[in-house]
Amino acid sequence: MQPILKINLSTQIFEEYKIPAEWERDYLGAASLAARILYDDLTADLDPLSPESPLLILTGPLTGTFGPATGRFIVAGKSPATRLWAESNVGGFWGVELRKCGYDGVWLTGKSDSPLYLWLNGTKPELRAADHLWGQDTYQIQESLKAEIGSKSAKVLGIGIAGENQIPMAGIFCDHGRAAGRTGLGAVMGSKNLKAIAVLGNGEIPLARPDKYKKLRVLANRALKEDPLTSVMSDLGSAGAAEYLDYLGEMPKKYFSAGTLEGSEKISGSSVAETILVGKKACHGCVIACGRVVDIGDGEKRKGPEYEALVGFGPNLGLTDPIFATRMGELCDRYGLDLISASGTIGLAYSLYEQGIISAADTDGLALEWGNADSAETLLHQLARREGFGALLAQGSLALARHFNAESQAVQVNGLELAYHDPRGASGMALVYATSPRGACHNQSDYFLADIGQVDDSLGLAFFDRHAGAEKAANVARHQDWRTVGNSLVICHFANVPPQTLLDLVNAACGWELDLDALMRAGERGWTLKRMINLNLGLRAANDRLPEPLLKALPDGGAAGYEIPFDEMLSAYYTARGWDAESGVPSREKLIELGLEYIA
Amino acid sequence: MQPILKINLSTQIFEEYKIPAEWERDYLGAASLAARILYDDLTADLDPLSPESPLLILTGPLTGTFGPATGRFIVAGKSPATRLWAESNVGGFWGVELRKCGYDGVWLTGKSDSPLYLWLNGTKPELRAADHLWGQDTYQIQESLKAEIGSKSAKVLGIGIAGENQIPMAGIFCDHGRAAGRTGLGAVMGSKNLKAIAVLGNGEIPLARPDKYKKLRVLANRALKEDPLTSVMSDLGSAGAAEYLDYLGEMPKKYFSAGTLEGSEKISGSSVAETILVGKKACHGCVIACGRVVDIGDGEKRKGPEYEALVGFGPNLGLTDPIFATRMGELCDRYGLDLISASGTIGLAYSLYEQGIISAADTDGLALEWGNADSAETLLHQLARREGFGALLAQGSLALARHFNAESQAVQVNGLELAYHDPRGASGMALVYATSPRGACHNQSDYFLADIGQVDDSLGLAFFDRHAGAEKAANVARHQDWRTVGNSLVICHFANVPPQTLLDLVNAACGWELDLDALMRAGERGWTLKRMINLNLGLRAANDRLPEPLLKALPDGGAAGYEIPFDEMLSAYYTARGWDAESGVPSREKLIELGLEYIA
Repeated sequence: MQPILKINLSTQIFEEYKIPAEWERDYLGAASLAARILYDDLTADLDPLSPESPLLILTGPLTGTFGPATGRFIVAGKSPATRLWAESNVGGFWGVELRKCGYDGVWLTGKSDSPLYLWLNGTKPELRAADHLWGQDTYQIQESLKAEIGSKSAKVLGIGIAGENQIPMAGIFCDHGRAAGRTGLGAVMGSKNLKAIAVLGNGEIPLARPDKYKKLRVLANRALKEDPLTSVMSDLGSAGAAEYLDYLGEMPKKYFSAGTLEGSEKISGSSVAETILVGKKACHGCVIACGRVVDIGDGEKRKGPEYEALVGFGPNLGLTDPIFATRMGELCDRYGLDLISASGTIGLAYSLYEQGIISAADTDGLALEWGNADSAETLLHQLARREGFGALLAQGSLALARHFNAESQAVQVNGLELAYHDPRGASGMALVYATSPRGACHNQSDYFLADIGQVDDSLGLAFFDRHAGAEKAANVARHQDWRTVGNSLVICHFANVPPQTLLDLVNAACGWELDLDALMRAGERGWTLKRMINLNLGLRAANDRLPEPLLKALPDGGAAGYEIPFDEMLSAYYTARGWDAESGVPSREKLIELGLEYIA
Repeated sequence: MQPILKINLSTQIFEEYKIPAEWERDYLGAASLAARILYDDLTADLDPLSPESPLLILTGPLTGTFGPATGRFIVAGKSPATRLWAESNVGGFWGVELRKCGYDGVWLTGKSDSPLYLWLNGTKPELRAADHLWGQDTYQIQESLKAEIGSKSAKVLGIGIAGENQIPMAGIFCDHGRAAGRTGLGAVMGSKNLKAIAVLGNGEIPLARPDKYKKLRVLANRALKEDPLTSVMSDLGSAGAAEYLDYLGEMPKKYFSAGTLEGSEKISGSSVAETILVGKKACHGCVIACGRVVDIGDGEKRKGPEYEALVGFGPNLGLTDPIFATRMGELCDRYGLDLISASGTIGLAYSLYEQGIISAADTDGLALEWGNADSAETLLHQLARREGFGALLAQGSLALARHFNAESQAVQVNGLELAYHDPRGASGMALVYATSPRGACHNQSDYFLADIGQVDDSLGLAFFDRHAGAEKAANVARHQDWRTVGNSLVICHFANVPPQTLLDLVNAACGWELDLDALMRAGERGWTLKRMINLNLGLRAANDRLPEPLLKALPDGGAAGYEIPFDEMLSAYYTARGWDAESGVPSREKLIELGLEYIA
């Protein structure tokens, strides 16, 4: 692989970092490789917002190769939200452009005294003053930097004022609203006084067997185009199955307290398509093009809402207006905020207000009744700016709940707010949220799809009822391993590419002869390594938990009355993983089996 | 296979008909085998409602074997609606029970002087007087005959008053609203004065390699349960993807004249599930259970509406009320009417009324504006009873249009009304409708699913855009062949069973060693034989047409502006089929290749 550009922002010293060749094959790239690279640096007493805290931006061996939905890259480090392993995965075009500059990653440490941006164009990397960019939102920096550089082809990655304000739910954004949203790495970037990284390259994306790869990718893209999920994702976006998820009780309402909501049928990809959709947008080389382009009545073309935006600023707050969700989604993007965490924290505020735990006296007079869109919009502005009640919200839902002595009310795991897939509608998500290396995350396994039968047969998962319990634990683990492979290559989870196809692509891209077992084992290795990092960072078995509100049954809707048998599920999961039944620590044998001797 | 019970209703002579063994392997069973059996009897001058007209009820080698969704059987003959090949496929439990009586089919000819029903219980078949049943609806005869026979386990197949009245859109119904709806074979049964066939058996369903079959069926059912389509079909029924089809402009509105309709989001499986669904119902041995059970507010458990009912008595008439569609669906069932043809003909009346071609003077004063539910309900009663304006509607849309000198307005092919999948939303359906052996039918290929990528990879179909043209012709032909295999075995089209799995099941059930090519060739053989039958019956290339309204672009919605390149598509289709480019007649070489020497 190409070198990683390592930059100490305190000293402004640049170096080219090369990893041992065997790490590539063992960890594949991107997320798992980042865990290997940062393993020694991530310690329990490291302050995520200190100069010593690393921020690693890394591509994978398939990034930019025109493979099926492989235009992605990741950012990694230590999360200011969870103080655990942090990673976030993002599409668009930036990562591809980075590789064309001759680097497969950028590793940042230190802290600049004043705002800077980094400019890479394939020759000498340059740090430039960014005082004039400070305070700009993530859409503005795109325009400003392209103008300054004098090329519309340059790609820009950066933070908004949420990152500048070191808000632990700040993300890192590229292109037009493509977000590495989760785990607060935007705050880490902000803490280093680095506003943005602009890249423009003209090199070749490295491929070990280019002829072979190019043949395979044509077939893989064709197959992907034919995949049942692709049509729906392409035509209706990530909310294509929203009506179904709603029916199953899998779409949260009123901050996970209600199973049904009048008007929720408007929260769907088809409703968006029929009312405001005017176009689609794809990441680099992707045949799906799940990105929406909408016109909400002002003649402007805007980024349309994904499923998480539609629900987070919709039923989660008792609302059902896709236009409002579009506007709030854009605000999150511009501020550089993780939409799930922001809307989740606002949802908690509404829930506490309903319960009388907080009142208008706490909210600067805002009424937080379900369905009140104006208050949500005001709170979002306040949150990003750390103003008024928003300063408290900016710390995330766990801190908010603790402030009001209501910690158990926060629907989060280890400090990260839940994505909008209620595990009571699809029980596999209970394990996913509880055991993800980065808190309540649905991108380390979108198992809700498996729970409703929407995964490729060739993945070899057994099928269980969406309300089955412990019997699905081994399946969940396998699906997590599979998604870990995806997060390492990097391939988008919306692309239903069969394991064998992906393996063939990886072997051709890297010149390897891996078999399927080796590929899946690399996934398990990455998962386990992140577990070990988190154990080093203080995670214990007691942290593998679901928040209390999710352990109660919903009163109505498609999951009404169902209680997750969580304890049995977790116990079966530990067993399936080869982890100690009490401590949740991977056994020495498991570590050695996975080639993690350096940890064992 | 077990013998077919052949009955001449004029003479009341019974015989056991055995087919040559090679026919089984060449035609598999059910629909294709029926075509082979009836080939000599179906002549151009045969009146479908004459005593000479045959009515053949036939199961397939998988019927009742607890294979994946294999509880089905077919009825076949000459259609009073199209005067072409007639077949219709139905689920439920009746066909299974017939096989348990030791028969794989019932072949009816002749005509009784007075109403009869047939009673089969595995011993001596019996014809009994049915005067007391005449006039009963298809739900009532279930109860009446079970009471008379003294067994709730007996299964009943029969006609309603539409069949008694020999309405050319009358179907044959079994169990509770399971319909062999299309092509008017209920009228043929009515013309013979046969009201019903009750069966109760206790024999074994024959299997050549029972141990092997039973192992395979467990795996096949498990795989089916995991299939992506199954979850949706099971949870949301056949309208599970309605929102998507609506968005694509594939769901017809206002009799195929509009692309959008206010409130159409209520026409969906999730909307039904969230409002009136109280249970599910499966055919014999089926793991999907697509059948809906609903409560529309009166505390009764009723059969819920399928997609075709929701659209036919919904957007087709400018309506969006699932409860109304439920009620009309039940009326069609009770009267014994094909819902698609009935609602389609009523839709034509509304369209002619809008255009001023007919007026209240023609309709006995009924106003037929879009959205008028009361008029539709009145027309449906009149149609079934051949009363007033309904007497004209009862002849179907082609006759209705001709009566008002507006033949081109009827959305039908060769006398059969279109199913509710607009080919402008998914162009493959244009060829499907134009070339189906039974008129505008979506059960000889539901290619709209292929057009949106929802078919199993292993079927080996290339993927084309839903608005691609001639390039998809060969694909359509292959999909038709595949569905012809399904209609012969019989397996439900909602069951996404891979070809290899189905092949293994067939071989184990029948003791064969077919390969996949042979299986698909059997499909092509059946398709081609039906083509030859239709050519014998007077069909010509000029009949392979779409109705004019579908050749114009829709004004709005997901198919707005798209015109089907029909002529090129048809020409490519003939080529792909090995049919003469001008006459559409299968070449002699093709017939010989398929083992149809007796025709060539």
